[in-house]
Amino acid sequence: MTLTQPRTSDTFDALLTALRRDLPAAALSTGPQTAPYATDRSGSHPDGEPLAVVHAAHTDHVRTALRHAHALRVPVVPRGAGTGLSGGANAGAGTVVLDLSRMNRVLDLDPHDQIAVVEPGVITAELDRAAGEFGLRYAPDPASAAISTVGGNIATNAGGLRCAKYGVTRDAVLGLDAVLADGTPVRTGRRTVKGVTGYDLTALLTGSEGTLAVITAATVRLRPVPEATVTVAAYFDTFAEGAEAVSALTAARVEPAMAELLDGPVLGAVDEAQGTDLRSRGGALLLLQCDGRSAQAEAELAVRLLRGRAASVETTADPAEADRLLAARRLALPSLERLGRVLIEDIAVPRTQLAAAVREITAAAERHDVRIFTFAHAADGNLHPILVLDHATADTADTADIPEAAWQAAGDIFTAALRLGGTLTGEHGVGTLKRRWLTDELGPAQHALQQRIKAAFDPHGILNPGKAL
Amino acid sequence: MTLTQPRTSDTFDALLTALRRDLPAAALSTGPQTAPYATDRSGSHPDGEPLAVVHAAHTDHVRTALRHAHALRVPVVPRGAGTGLSGGANAGAGTVVLDLSRMNRVLDLDPHDQIAVVEPGVITAELDRAAGEFGLRYAPDPASAAISTVGGNIATNAGGLRCAKYGVTRDAVLGLDAVLADGTPVRTGRRTVKGVTGYDLTALLTGSEGTLAVITAATVRLRPVPEATVTVAAYFDTFAEGAEAVSALTAARVEPAMAELLDGPVLGAVDEAQGTDLRSRGGALLLLQCDGRSAQAEAELAVRLLRGRAASVETTADPAEADRLLAARRLALPSLERLGRVLIEDIAVPRTQLAAAVREITAAAERHDVRIFTFAHAADGNLHPILVLDHATADTADTADIPEAAWQAAGDIFTAALRLGGTLTGEHGVGTLKRRWLTDELGPAQHALQQRIKAAFDPHGILNPGKAL
Repeated sequence: MTLTQPRTSDTFDALLTALRRDLPAAALSTGPQTAPYATDRSGSHPDGEPLAVVHAAHTDHVRTALRHAHALRVPVVPRGAGTGLSGGANAGAGTVVLDLSRMNRVLDLDPHDQIAVVEPGVITAELDRAAGEFGLRYAPDPASAAISTVGGNIATNAGGLRCAKYGVTRDAVLGLDAVLADGTPVRTGRRTVKGVTGYDLTALLTGSEGTLAVITAATVRLRPVPEATVTVAAYFDTFAEGAEAVSALTAARVEPAMAELLDGPVLGAVDEAQGTDLRSRGGALLLLQCDGRSAQAEAELAVRLLRGRAASVETTADPAEADRLLAARRLALPSLERLGRVLIEDIAVPRTQLAAAVREITAAAERHDVRIFTFAHAADGNLHPILVLDHATADTADTADIPEAAWQAAGDIFTAALRLGGTLTGEHGVGTLKRRWLTDELGPAQHALQQRIKAAFDPHGILNPGKAL
Repeated sequence: MTLTQPRTSDTFDALLTALRRDLPAAALSTGPQTAPYATDRSGSHPDGEPLAVVHAAHTDHVRTALRHAHALRVPVVPRGAGTGLSGGANAGAGTVVLDLSRMNRVLDLDPHDQIAVVEPGVITAELDRAAGEFGLRYAPDPASAAISTVGGNIATNAGGLRCAKYGVTRDAVLGLDAVLADGTPVRTGRRTVKGVTGYDLTALLTGSEGTLAVITAATVRLRPVPEATVTVAAYFDTFAEGAEAVSALTAARVEPAMAELLDGPVLGAVDEAQGTDLRSRGGALLLLQCDGRSAQAEAELAVRLLRGRAASVETTADPAEADRLLAARRLALPSLERLGRVLIEDIAVPRTQLAAAVREITAAAERHDVRIFTFAHAADGNLHPILVLDHATADTADTADIPEAAWQAAGDIFTAALRLGGTLTGEHGVGTLKRRWLTDELGPAQHALQQRIKAAFDPHGILNPGKAL
C-alpha cells in the first residue's frame, strides 16, 4: 500500500510532460490554479497544494491520467464537487487531482425501466430534477444534494434524510463504469434490479472513497415520486423523550420517510440566529414525514401515538406550511456555524440506542468542556453531534488547530458508538479525520484484509492514499 | 487461484489425522457417509465423493477445519442444506465438505431494533417464523425457504418472490461473522441500518458462493408483517400481453409485493399434473400481491388497469382463497418435474425487456428443438426458463448427459439476456453450471480483478475452487 519509490521532482516533471502531451490544454491546471482543489469541506487542510488538476471531460482523460500516474507512482485524488466532510478529497503536495465535475451529462434516463445512467459529475439535485420530469425521483438525498455530485455520493455511500424508508446511495446504484488505477476500464453490475454474476463490485466500490477505482458512469435506480406527503412536528421536553417516541413509532409499524430529531441546544442556536422562539416550546423537536398512498393514515397514527408523549404536535399536508415546519432543520447547521468553527460528527447506533447515545454525547461534552449540539436522522439511528469550537481556533481551518479537548470528546463519542453496537460514520465516510479510530471498529484482521483488497485494485497505492483505510 | 501443489494421499492422511485429533468424533464423517454431501439440487455431479465432511457445531470447528485445510492446501466446500441449483455446493474427490447445518441457532432476535443474529444453518422459514412471534418477518423469500438455510441464501444472494418491493438477501444483511481461508475470524458490518466505515465486505461476501470466506453468523434486518395483503389473478391471451400489463402497473406506480407471470406451457403442465384447466383460461397467468396499509387501494388500481388488458381478473383478500389462486405458481416446478429432467435457468433483464426475453426463449427452444417452459418474477425482470429434457437422459442426473442441444439453447438464452442489458443469473448464482458464460458478462478485465480479490481472501485457493468465478 505504501508507495514503492520516493517521488522526485524528475518524476513530477515526467508526469506533467506526459499529461501535457496526451491531454487537451483545457483539461490540465498547474501552479496556483490548483489551490482551490486542495481541500474539501471538512475544515482540514493537507500540507501543500496539488501538483496538477486534470479536469476530465471524457473517460479517456481519466484513463490517460491514471495510466501515467500509475506508471510513475504518483498519487491521484479523485474529486467531485469537493463537498465532503471527512477530508476524503483533500489533496496535498505531490498529488494529482482528478476533477470529474465536467463529466456532468445524464447519458440515459429510461422512465419505463426507472433507471438513469449518469456521469459522475452530475449534481445530485439535477438528476433528481431530470427524473422529476417523468414523475420519478432519485431517492438518496444527502443534505448536500444541491451542491454535491452523484459520483461523490457514491464514493462516500452518502445517506440523507429519507434513508430509513428508501435506503442509502448503495441501494440506488445498480452498476458502475470505473477505471482501475492502471487505466483499465471495467463495468460492474447491470441495468437489472437483480443479478448475482460474480462478486458485487458495485457495492464494494460504493463507499470506497476513491481508493479502489475512479467512477466514470453510474447506472442508478429511480423511484416514483410519492402520491402524497404529510409533515408532523412534535416538541418534547427532552431529547430522550423524542427518541423514545421514535422507537414507539417504529414499534407501531409507522415507516416515516423522514424523522429528524433536534436537541434543545440546536433549537436555541436556531432561535439566536433566526429570531424564532423554538426553544421555549420544548427541549427537542421531532420532524416527521409520512409519504405514499397511505401517508395520511400513517401520519394520523403517528399523531395519535405522539399526543400522549409530546408537549405539542402539529401536522400539515400543505407544502408551504411543511416548509415552514422544516425550516428549523434546514437552518440548524448555518445557525451553528455562526457560533464558531463546527466539527460535524456522524455516528450511527442501533435505533433503540438513540437516547443512550445522546446521554453519552452530553457526558463527553461536559467531561471535556466542549460545546456539542446534536441532531439525528432518528429512524435509522444516525446522529450528527456538532462540536462548536471557539472562533479563536476557527481562522486557519486546520486540523492542527483543533484543541485536544475536542479530539478527546470526539474519541469518547466514537468509543460510545462502538460500545452501543454502532459505527464511527453513518454516512460521511472515514476520509482522513476518522482514520485513527478505524481499527477500533474493523479489528486488525479485517483491516489487513481490506488493505489486501485495496492492493488487488491498486497495487502501487496511487488512488487517494491515506484516506478511508 | 490454482492449487500450488499436487495433493497426494499423504496430504489427505495428514488432514484426516489432524481433523480427528482436533475435532470431536461426532463432527467428522468419512468414507461412504460422505456420499450425500457430494451434490446440491442442480442435477450435476462432480467426479467422485468428498474425502470428509466436517459437521461444524461451533465457529471453533470451522476455524480448525480451515486452518488445517489451508496448511495442507486441501479444497473446502462450505455447505448449508444443499438446496442450491447451480452446483455451488458440489464436492468431488479430494475435497472436504464443511457442513454448517448444525450451526442452527437464532442467537438474538431484537424486536425493537428489528434485527436478528443467526447462525448460518438456520432454515430461512424458521427465522421468518421466529420473527413472526413479534409481528415481524424476514423479507427474503426464495422458493426454497422451507428447506434452505440463511447462510446458503447469503452465499448465493438469494432472491425470491417479493424482491421487487422488499429487495434481495443482500438488502437484509447488515453484518457477518466469517472465517477466512486460513482460519482467521472477521466481523463485517454492524447492527445499524447505516454505516460506511471501511469497504463493504458484507455485500462482497453476500453472493460469493463460499469462495471468499465461511459465514458463521449473520446480523439481518427484520421488517413488520404487512397489515394486509390482497391477491389478484389475471389471465392473458399471451405472455407478451401479461408482460406489458406488468410494465403498465409499474408505470402507474403500483409496487406489488409479488408479480409472478406463468406462460401457457407451464399452465398446461400444471393442468396435466393436477387435473385443473388453467390453460383453457389463457396463454399466461399473472399472480399479483399488493400489501401494506394501502394494499386494498393499490389492488383496486391494479385491477382497473388489468381489466382492459386481461381476459379475466379475480381478486381476494381471503388467505385461503389467495392460496388457491397461488397454487398454480407453487405447483409449477413439481408439475414440470413429472415431464422429464428439468434444468432451471435464471436470467434477469431490465423490466421492460420481459416480453422480448420470452420471444428469445421461444426462438431458442424452436431453434434447438428443446422444450422450454417459463415463469418469471415479472416486477424485477427475473425469468426462469425451465428446460425439460427427455426422461431418457434423466436417470444419471449427470451434466455429461445433457444433450448438446440443451446447452446450445441455454447459451442462446444467456447471450440474449446480456444483449437485452441483463444477466446470466438473477438469483441462483453461477456455481459450476454457468461458468462457461461468465466472462461474457464480466469482461476479461473485471474477471481478472475478481480473481485478484479472491486471492486477497484465499491465497491458496482452497475455498470452493472451481465455483462462481
